[in-house]
Amino acid sequence: MMTKPLMILLFAGVLGCLGPFAAAQPPRGPLVVSPQVHANKTVTFRYLAPSAREVLLNGGQFGASAVPMTKEAQGIWSVTVGPIKPDIYPYSFQVDGVTVMDPANVAFFPNERFKASLVDVPGDTPLVHALREVPHGTVTYEYYPSVSGTTGSVVIYTPPGYDKNTSQKYPVFYLISGTTDTEETYFKVGKTNFILDNLLAEGKAKPMIVVMPYGNVAARIAEQTGKPKPADPVVRDDAEAVSRAKAFETDLLTNIIPYVEKNYRAIPNRENRAIGGFSRGGGQTLRAAFGNMDKFAWVCSYSSYLSPQEMDRSFPQIGANPTNTNKQFKLLWVSVGSDDFLYQGTLEFMDYLKAKNVNFKSRITDGGHTWMNVKKYVAETTPMLFQ
Amino acid sequence: MMTKPLMILLFAGVLGCLGPFAAAQPPRGPLVVSPQVHANKTVTFRYLAPSAREVLLNGGQFGASAVPMTKEAQGIWSVTVGPIKPDIYPYSFQVDGVTVMDPANVAFFPNERFKASLVDVPGDTPLVHALREVPHGTVTYEYYPSVSGTTGSVVIYTPPGYDKNTSQKYPVFYLISGTTDTEETYFKVGKTNFILDNLLAEGKAKPMIVVMPYGNVAARIAEQTGKPKPADPVVRDDAEAVSRAKAFETDLLTNIIPYVEKNYRAIPNRENRAIGGFSRGGGQTLRAAFGNMDKFAWVCSYSSYLSPQEMDRSFPQIGANPTNTNKQFKLLWVSVGSDDFLYQGTLEFMDYLKAKNVNFKSRITDGGHTWMNVKKYVAETTPMLFQ
Repeated sequence: MMTKPLMILLFAGVLGCLGPFAAAQPPRGPLVVSPQVHANKTVTFRYLAPSAREVLLNGGQFGASAVPMTKEAQGIWSVTVGPIKPDIYPYSFQVDGVTVMDPANVAFFPNERFKASLVDVPGDTPLVHALREVPHGTVTYEYYPSVSGTTGSVVIYTPPGYDKNTSQKYPVFYLISGTTDTEETYFKVGKTNFILDNLLAEGKAKPMIVVMPYGNVAARIAEQTGKPKPADPVVRDDAEAVSRAKAFETDLLTNIIPYVEKNYRAIPNRENRAIGGFSRGGGQTLRAAFGNMDKFAWVCSYSSYLSPQEMDRSFPQIGANPTNTNKQFKLLWVSVGSDDFLYQGTLEFMDYLKAKNVNFKSRITDGGHTWMNVKKYVAETTPMLFQ
Repeated sequence: MMTKPLMILLFAGVLGCLGPFAAAQPPRGPLVVSPQVHANKTVTFRYLAPSAREVLLNGGQFGASAVPMTKEAQGIWSVTVGPIKPDIYPYSFQVDGVTVMDPANVAFFPNERFKASLVDVPGDTPLVHALREVPHGTVTYEYYPSVSGTTGSVVIYTPPGYDKNTSQKYPVFYLISGTTDTEETYFKVGKTNFILDNLLAEGKAKPMIVVMPYGNVAARIAEQTGKPKPADPVVRDDAEAVSRAKAFETDLLTNIIPYVEKNYRAIPNRENRAIGGFSRGGGQTLRAAFGNMDKFAWVCSYSSYLSPQEMDRSFPQIGANPTNTNKQFKLLWVSVGSDDFLYQGTLEFMDYLKAKNVNFKSRITDGGHTWMNVKKYVAETTPMLFQ
């Protein structure tokens, strides 16, 4: 019988360094496969926790709220749920009351305030966000000089052929994520790149550059200048929130757009700039568009709105001169899910626009304030842009 | 006094959707700032867990193994450790025995088997991997047709000016990560892009493209074809491990390199191809280089080696004809930390090369099988490439 160190040495030697201790964690236990999506669209989730007393599956967005898991061989907890309607959903485990990501799953939800993993239940025919055998665009992380001497990070999609057709110029869609999301969320959760790849392969959208900035400028300034992190915007007063929205708008207009138009083959005029956003990003979208009508001709608000009060106070010209508003905006899109906690406010915003004779397109869907709906809205609106 | 729904509505209306429920998690508690790096290089870690009985900090790579944290106001557990030697380290919390990432921290360690967060302790003068105000290259996620009809994902760094100097062609460094790492690990943990940006700004390296593939081809095939996930390579026999290494090599030579040379302005000859890797990636590097001497002229093995037995069996020509080996390889670099569990094996590999009169450069550093050492090795070797 071999001693353990000798076995490790032999393995390492023969395998040429399949090093099992590549990072900070204790030696690994048995291999855990999770999530396992079955052909019938049920999904098995597993979590290794030999000494836990209770493990729950937290997958409320696919109807599995606090589902108890069962402890099986080797201390692996397991549960099978579904069938689940095909889509990509966030989930986590609750282990003796502690919320954790799935350590066996590389797919995660980039966010400043929570950690969730992602499960992808494929459709019988590929969904609009599926990785398919079509020409693929690329997703690039760019670093640009941002406000207050900081360096910003922005994620940019370029369509298939961008690097080949070097004389072609493209319109640009600026796409802003929600509260506590990061510049990665449209890529990692929203699958915006695959949605565009698929729409382009089917001839349903115009080739475009998609620019995905980070919305929380105040947090980045604090991080890079060593200042204390700003308090959570959710619990702040109005003035602070408006000032933060303004900081993002300044970054977008004075740093991001010029950077993109200098470094990418972008068509630099309002007819070829669209702006859209989800949740907080939708508010930032509407403010940036209504406050800078010379900059954007296409506007998409996903699960978001501005109040009639803010409209009258900050953007009175939108309703006062609907003829001009309707001429300037080639698309003003407002969408929301009927279970969204912002549903009523969004309806009021639509009523406001109607009462002022401002043209807009709208979509009320099922569902709530989720990234399943964001994917749906992105897939529905991008074909309308720049057409 | 306002009712709660009214308050939410007012906030949402005024703030234009600073939606607090943007995803799957329950309503948020108080804002937790973690990690907080102080000027004196001590670091405060915090974790919200009102009902936990014990929370430990798991930061063994900066000397904080299982450090108890203290429960403070609002159920936030906290501990301050250090001063910590400037570097980027992985850490996690152990909450009633459950290992979790830091939910307040966006910086994470991409890995197939564990989840860790990252803490960045800056130096008094910027470290080689620091984000500095220098020209920045970009990092791009590419999708390419890979083995067995799957679509591969590869992360590619292009140096500052790549998009501007469109007549310039560049050498390419293929850089392979460790066991259970992903194609993102050199970017997110290794900060390879910032290391190159900084070296280039100081004129210390030649502008190059860096290609970071995913090493675990077997897992990707299983995932995309709906087959059962393969068992953990660490516990497999030799034949399986060698066959997997071969699958990666096939993907590299027949898919990745042709894709890069078709879609990037790469100089397509051996003198302008380097290959390097960490841990399992180091083994893959040595096998690919020794088995394909017509393909690579620059070879870097970080914290890795091949056994004398495998060298004699699979690559006898390396030692049998050292004159040719020394002529072909413009750099053969082998490095390891003195606390690495692969230290002895790496010394034996060096002894083998010495005994066979094969030229190589080596570096023995402090430390173990860590990404702090990977960053050090990347920073030391990239200036030698293509010179």
